[in-house]
Amino acid sequence: MPTFVEMLQAAAERNNSLLCVGLDPDPKLMPVPDVAEFNRAIIEATSDLVCAYKPNLGFYEALGPAGHEALEQTLKAIPSWIPVIGDSKRGDIGNTATAYAHAMFDVWGFDCVTVNAFGGQDSVEPFLDYHHKGVLVWCRSSNPGARELQDLIVTPPLGGDSRPFYEWVAISAAKWNTHGNVGLVVGATYPDELEVIRDLCPDMPILIPGVGAQEGSLEKSTMAGIDVQGRNAMVSASRGVLYAGNDPATYPDDARKAATQLRDRMNVMLEDRDLGWPT
Amino acid sequence: MPTFVEMLQAAAERNNSLLCVGLDPDPKLMPVPDVAEFNRAIIEATSDLVCAYKPNLGFYEALGPAGHEALEQTLKAIPSWIPVIGDSKRGDIGNTATAYAHAMFDVWGFDCVTVNAFGGQDSVEPFLDYHHKGVLVWCRSSNPGARELQDLIVTPPLGGDSRPFYEWVAISAAKWNTHGNVGLVVGATYPDELEVIRDLCPDMPILIPGVGAQEGSLEKSTMAGIDVQGRNAMVSASRGVLYAGNDPATYPDDARKAATQLRDRMNVMLEDRDLGWPT
Repeated sequence: MPTFVEMLQAAAERNNSLLCVGLDPDPKLMPVPDVAEFNRAIIEATSDLVCAYKPNLGFYEALGPAGHEALEQTLKAIPSWIPVIGDSKRGDIGNTATAYAHAMFDVWGFDCVTVNAFGGQDSVEPFLDYHHKGVLVWCRSSNPGARELQDLIVTPPLGGDSRPFYEWVAISAAKWNTHGNVGLVVGATYPDELEVIRDLCPDMPILIPGVGAQEGSLEKSTMAGIDVQGRNAMVSASRGVLYAGNDPATYPDDARKAATQLRDRMNVMLEDRDLGWPT
Repeated sequence: MPTFVEMLQAAAERNNSLLCVGLDPDPKLMPVPDVAEFNRAIIEATSDLVCAYKPNLGFYEALGPAGHEALEQTLKAIPSWIPVIGDSKRGDIGNTATAYAHAMFDVWGFDCVTVNAFGGQDSVEPFLDYHHKGVLVWCRSSNPGARELQDLIVTPPLGGDSRPFYEWVAISAAKWNTHGNVGLVVGATYPDELEVIRDLCPDMPILIPGVGAQEGSLEKSTMAGIDVQGRNAMVSASRGVLYAGNDPATYPDDARKAATQLRDRMNVMLEDRDLGWPT
């Protein structure tokens, strides 16, 4: 059974892509009413363009039981060789964390999850115990208010330089990575911070949401987020791809065009740095 | 329509209780197999003893679609005058936070939720916009590893005393409380920290999990967590009540006895300090 990192690497190579598409169905924006049908069309239009898909659980929970049904249908529509990240930012302690890990990995069957590590290592361990799955620790969010708590300056308990809180989260995540299954979530809207975090965690996969609708710079954030081989970054777009068109007849084509553009813009940058895909 | 704080106050007075019972169904521990039946029996046995119920969503999600059905049945079984806290520690940004708030308040209909405020004020605002609902910010967890990130010492951006990160969370939560609908979650296992937090937030409701199975001291944490009137603390027990007995014929009675003991021990302390319930 391949690990998440192996799946990610294989899908990225096969599709020559660092693009992750976020499957965040919003009935107010969708050109067709049925969520499963919408997602299926998006997946069919983009499955040769992505390194991963990322359904965000909030959008499905907001739809009640029908949303859960739609998520189940969506997961079935994704080709099995493309890794699927359950973006739920779950975080709790003890037996609750165990229950969430079971829900995400065994019940839903995600290949990877996003988690909130506020509870510390023992709150993340039930997820880490799934060695072949991926666990992406939410490190730096892409929203305007991210600075409020994440940038608070921390004095190191054992001496050394002071650092913002989010860097401590990255350092902690690297420490927890004894099974090679830990990664990070860092918003594309803060490329300088992303660069520092990549230096702290040179080999870990980083999910980078916030390009497109949130207007994080694709160029800057991709360059800041890749590892030295030009890999291990999942640059994630949701609204910018899903709602590129609003005509029920042509929205899959529009999504395909938007995804192609994002992927190709990143690949030009990789080529420019001799980090392009093997031919 | 009463606010969460009004509902909490009324239920606490009516039942003379600061006890919240956590409805965390664990098939490995339940004396009967059916979750909805189990919860219904627990609720019937304790609804005159509690100030609130707190289903923890992780336990339901771990059961898949059947868990969602069981949660729906459970919510129907709770008398409408008892406030229900959806313990889900959700936290995300922008339109995802809006989706989660809609899911918790409109789809599930919880009177109150627990949230993770790592994303800062704009990540919590979609919840706060429901003025008549309660929003409890996870401030200090009750697990052994809580200290790892929550105790990191922060240098204040505008000068003043350094404080641990969790105190900044409390200070931020107090600042966000412009509609009187914000509270905190602080583990019973850290009564000294709880006392400091109560001083920082003298009027906000505090949910205090971790008595019972997690062995937080009931006496110390209750005294540290109440406000000056001896109210506004929800001392939460789950396993210690739910699994007090394991005989299918008598487990509701055992749960009732355990809940009564916890409530009465707290009431003795309130009486001792002339903070008892009006007769």
